[in-house]
Amino acid sequence: MKIKVGILGATGNVGQRFIQMLENHPIFELEALGASERSLGKTYKEACYWYQTEPIPEDVSKAVVVSTNPDDKAYEDVDIVFSALPSDLAKKLEPAFAKAGKYVFSNASAMRMEKDVPLIVPEVNYEHFGMIEVQKSNNNTDGAVITNPNCSTIAAVLSLKPIMDKFGIDLVNITTMQAVSGAGYDGVPSMAILDNLVPHIGGEEEKMQTESLKILGNFEENGFKNANFKMGVSCNRVPVIDGHTESIFVKTTEETTPEEIINAMNDFDPLKRFNLPSYAKPIVIRSEIDRPQPRLDRNTGNGMSIVVGRVRKDPIFTVKYTALEHNTIRGAAGASVLNAELFVQKYL
Amino acid sequence: MKIKVGILGATGNVGQRFIQMLENHPIFELEALGASERSLGKTYKEACYWYQTEPIPEDVSKAVVVSTNPDDKAYEDVDIVFSALPSDLAKKLEPAFAKAGKYVFSNASAMRMEKDVPLIVPEVNYEHFGMIEVQKSNNNTDGAVITNPNCSTIAAVLSLKPIMDKFGIDLVNITTMQAVSGAGYDGVPSMAILDNLVPHIGGEEEKMQTESLKILGNFEENGFKNANFKMGVSCNRVPVIDGHTESIFVKTTEETTPEEIINAMNDFDPLKRFNLPSYAKPIVIRSEIDRPQPRLDRNTGNGMSIVVGRVRKDPIFTVKYTALEHNTIRGAAGASVLNAELFVQKYL
Amino acid sequence: MKIKVGILGATGNVGQRFIQMLENHPIFELEALGASERSLGKTYKEACYWYQTEPIPEDVSKAVVVSTNPDDKAYEDVDIVFSALPSDLAKKLEPAFAKAGKYVFSNASAMRMEKDVPLIVPEVNYEHFGMIEVQKSNNNTDGAVITNPNCSTIAAVLSLKPIMDKFGIDLVNITTMQAVSGAGYDGVPSMAILDNLVPHIGGEEEKMQTESLKILGNFEENGFKNANFKMGVSCNRVPVIDGHTESIFVKTTEETTPEEIINAMNDFDPLKRFNLPSYAKPIVIRSEIDRPQPRLDRNTGNGMSIVVGRVRKDPIFTVKYTALEHNTIRGAAGASVLNAELFVQKYL
Amino acid sequence: MKIKVGILGATGNVGQRFIQMLENHPIFELEALGASERSLGKTYKEACYWYQTEPIPEDVSKAVVVSTNPDDKAYEDVDIVFSALPSDLAKKLEPAFAKAGKYVFSNASAMRMEKDVPLIVPEVNYEHFGMIEVQKSNNNTDGAVITNPNCSTIAAVLSLKPIMDKFGIDLVNITTMQAVSGAGYDGVPSMAILDNLVPHIGGEEEKMQTESLKILGNFEENGFKNANFKMGVSCNRVPVIDGHTESIFVKTTEETTPEEIINAMNDFDPLKRFNLPSYAKPIVIRSEIDRPQPRLDRNTGNGMSIVVGRVRKDPIFTVKYTALEHNTIRGAAGASVLNAELFVQKYL
Repeated sequence: MKIKVGILGATGNVGQRFIQMLENHPIFELEALGASERSLGKTYKEACYWYQTEPIPEDVSKAVVVSTNPDDKAYEDVDIVFSALPSDLAKKLEPAFAKAGKYVFSNASAMRMEKDVPLIVPEVNYEHFGMIEVQKSNNNTDGAVITNPNCSTIAAVLSLKPIMDKFGIDLVNITTMQAVSGAGYDGVPSMAILDNLVPHIGGEEEKMQTESLKILGNFEENGFKNANFKMGVSCNRVPVIDGHTESIFVKTTEETTPEEIINAMNDFDPLKRFNLPSYAKPIVIRSEIDRPQPRLDRNTGNGMSIVVGRVRKDPIFTVKYTALEHNTIRGAAGASVLNAELFVQKYL
Repeated sequence: MKIKVGILGATGNVGQRFIQMLENHPIFELEALGASERSLGKTYKEACYWYQTEPIPEDVSKAVVVSTNPDDKAYEDVDIVFSALPSDLAKKLEPAFAKAGKYVFSNASAMRMEKDVPLIVPEVNYEHFGMIEVQKSNNNTDGAVITNPNCSTIAAVLSLKPIMDKFGIDLVNITTMQAVSGAGYDGVPSMAILDNLVPHIGGEEEKMQTESLKILGNFEENGFKNANFKMGVSCNRVPVIDGHTESIFVKTTEETTPEEIINAMNDFDPLKRFNLPSYAKPIVIRSEIDRPQPRLDRNTGNGMSIVVGRVRKDPIFTVKYTALEHNTIRGAAGASVLNAELFVQKYL
Repeated sequence: MKIKVGILGATGNVGQRFIQMLENHPIFELEALGASERSLGKTYKEACYWYQTEPIPEDVSKAVVVSTNPDDKAYEDVDIVFSALPSDLAKKLEPAFAKAGKYVFSNASAMRMEKDVPLIVPEVNYEHFGMIEVQKSNNNTDGAVITNPNCSTIAAVLSLKPIMDKFGIDLVNITTMQAVSGAGYDGVPSMAILDNLVPHIGGEEEKMQTESLKILGNFEENGFKNANFKMGVSCNRVPVIDGHTESIFVKTTEETTPEEIINAMNDFDPLKRFNLPSYAKPIVIRSEIDRPQPRLDRNTGNGMSIVVGRVRKDPIFTVKYTALEHNTIRGAAGASVLNAELFVQKYL
Repeated sequence: MKIKVGILGATGNVGQRFIQMLENHPIFELEALGASERSLGKTYKEACYWYQTEPIPEDVSKAVVVSTNPDDKAYEDVDIVFSALPSDLAKKLEPAFAKAGKYVFSNASAMRMEKDVPLIVPEVNYEHFGMIEVQKSNNNTDGAVITNPNCSTIAAVLSLKPIMDKFGIDLVNITTMQAVSGAGYDGVPSMAILDNLVPHIGGEEEKMQTESLKILGNFEENGFKNANFKMGVSCNRVPVIDGHTESIFVKTTEETTPEEIINAMNDFDPLKRFNLPSYAKPIVIRSEIDRPQPRLDRNTGNGMSIVVGRVRKDPIFTVKYTALEHNTIRGAAGASVLNAELFVQKYL
């Protein structure tokens, strides 16, 4: 018997990626496609402009879009909802679904920094799932909200985790080059980005800096405790469809070498033993001098692996490297689904 | 009476920019268009695929291309040659032109790090022109080779100079996002860069790190003395035609604020009093949250100003900011021409 | 004494181009910047996101945006308004301005096909200005609405006119490759067009087919009479910022050759004698095998010339050629301004 | 027992696509990777810059590259070679391989228009395979050269064939918008195509015009007889990685409607009964107003289907439509492989 799931915000770019991740899923069965009033009662095909390169799954295409109201009877048998809601709606609706007894795995930013909401990259900090019981108790609910971080945060924390574990981290400096899909389908006008780049993404630098410290920090009795290093970020938008690329500089606590860092990343594989359906090796190392590249490498591990290359010494930091992540798979829908898969297997 | 000048490597991308910079120039008169054997004896129009958005100047179009041999009589009356030669040819030919009594203003990398060759960004270190006499004496020549740095170095040192002068610099970290024109017309295949970026540019990081310290260092009796700070760089190629963008992080020696840094950059204008033909205010500050952008801002000051924006605090460094430079004007042909203009006015 | 003019829809992409065309204009003085309620009372700089590569003219930057109500006293001394309004607003407001005694030179599509509204490309059919008196009389107004065609129509009719005059035209077939700026700043999301093209532009094919026949037709006592040839069009959007490119096939009534067509186009210059401020040679012929190209050639004649190349024989049609037009200058703002300049000189 | 095959020109863009098509192929086994002297003796991984988005098949990666000499013992057991050679080499080497008893399925243009060389799109004219016996007899060889057309020709003839069969064709007019991969990895510099298009592809218009008439013509006792309609073409290069898009206009002999044309295309499926490994429905019709689009639709049928949309009336021609083809799969490597699969099944 599969677990029945719903999607909130099913017609947008991340919603479409959720649908792709859940197609023929071995443990989840897609039951409810929630979207805004405009789409209500239409078939999914009518309601959405599908802009993925694979066709809409046949059954989804014909399914009728429902509301995002937790009382909608479409959610009656649903245990888990995946949220791709805009932030303002997420703030209202996600707690409402938790109150209605659902586990909400959310890609929205609204609840990420709440004190009793876990912010999880499962390879990095699945022990933070422990906060779910606190959250339920605080709010007197049967369900809970579990979030995954901002797309650009994931490549950072995934690649930093094995370094932190082995050598400790004092300082992290990151400059991102982020794909246009991160802003949603209508987010970046072509006139803004053809033959151009934009050296600013609203709120992104702050999100990366605060989220990373929460995720790489500890879950303790009385709350989350931030990781104890400094991190500075500069974010840029570039004319790439999918795939965030990051130039990352790290100063470790203990001395180390690029070779040892590469080995630590290669060995890093804490979820392997769970055999999760959406699992892929979290970090794939490329040895070519000019990789990773977003167009060529973003689909590594079906878009669930980050790809790291050019690990080398730096005059100021201990090492620098380039990390790449498929921002709408590993950095969004895939992140929520992997969280849910691990949660189901380990905690339900 | 104008000074007669030649161009070595006149048909390539930087050569074309030299031609544009020298059109109707008030003190230089273009006399010799030197190129490889393939082009010899053809009119410039026949010899070159002109890919600038302004037409070829009429007289240049009809001029006959000559050799790059300093004995060619086309160079007889020429006092200055501008070099856009590839590095291997530059290594041989630039000293030969100096021996033939010419001042060679070179955009090539071959001679930049030689002990007696000045590497000049005129707003930053024109006192390094003093090395010319040493070079002449060392080589027993009447001419000399004067270089300008790699394109991506110029935005860095121009924006760092006012900071260094006022507050001192301890650490500099830069991630670049560089335009395809920096690799020459054929340098970056479209299949390599459409919907993509490449996190590597051969030799670029090393050049930026070594050249910047030489330029920001001192000219002393017995040689150049490097600036005394550490600098780490990560270079990327992005799908932009013209305009290198750099995310720059600086730790100053003395405490300071973004506002003070902005003021220092705004006040920085050491060449203004010379009224040089190609002069533009070296640093233009943009206050919008999402500027500078290469497509919109690269032509600021006819491509001779760098544009700085987003000066702000950083958790690790004192400040971070974004700098933009037109890489084939300010970063290449314009750099050589401005060097020559100042040299002529101040030293000839 | 200059003629005072206003712009309706001053903050959008075409509005910005109007501002650039009218900067330092010898006969027009920009007096009123009309925009929607959202912008009212703000300075132009505050009200608009300026995305041109040249800075906002200083005086415009500080000017206060006014309403688009003809009763607004900002329009009191204005004789001419240029309209870059969206179609639905144009339909209401342009006749209202005409009623208020203004000449409205409109780039909007709303009124183009009205029976008493002239649709003018001045090199092609300025005798259609004759309809202005009919329109005034029909509506009992002192002002009138004068339109210019859809951007992609202009390259077509300008290049067809000299062919029609000399050899007659039986059939015209066009496939367009149109720049994203034609859809307005937000019109084409980057996700829709990076590494892609879109083989459809709403209403464009119909507009080109109907407008071309009106423009190339005759103005007669009792109305316009369409040109007497057939025209079929297929429109595509491509990832180009500015510059519509068109593959055009023409079957002429009389036999002719590519050389004769080239000569006819080269000789075509009916406005030269008027010395209009925005005038440029209407058709510039390029002889290179691979021109015109939008990035390299769109600014020919300050964006007011169309560029034609590859005029050659075709197995079905008499000739085929490629035509290029800067769609937001020659194809929009520049078209209205040139209409107004000729109207003022010849009819006022 | 699988048939052993080789690839000539294995390291280039089309060669890489051949490798992908032949991975885990049910009837072909890849035995010889032939390339130029530069690559000889290296492993394939060392010899080639692999720029596909899927990794190199493991066994190919380690295989050693061999010469393109038919006497090389690497070809001893090979029955079929696929050729992705440049035209000049193809002219020499393909007949040499035929003489050595191999069947050469070639994507090169060199031999396509030879009188006894079949030029085949298997859904359209597989009866032209009959010419193989004539060729063998003419040249006294055991092998033969079988070609597939130029990439842009295939979308044309595939979509025209069902129209011709049902309604007859009098006139065809095509304007292409072709992807950069069609020119090979280094073929189109990024500076040539970013924010641009190029209205010319050397030899392409002529190839489309001549090849289409040969393919759609008849194979008769004494030779091929061209199809009896006129066709005019205009070719353009656009900034798209993969996927040629074509605006096609057709005048049929008998009257018909867009609906009948759509039905004829939908019903067109002459290879279905053969169950060929690389087979996909040849024409997939999209009903959306703005499809096909290269980025979204090029992988339809694993890149082996062409996608047709916007079938509609035209004022001059009977219908016009947009056709899309994956130019390096269906238009190159896949075309040769499908030819070979049918040949093996039906004629060997």
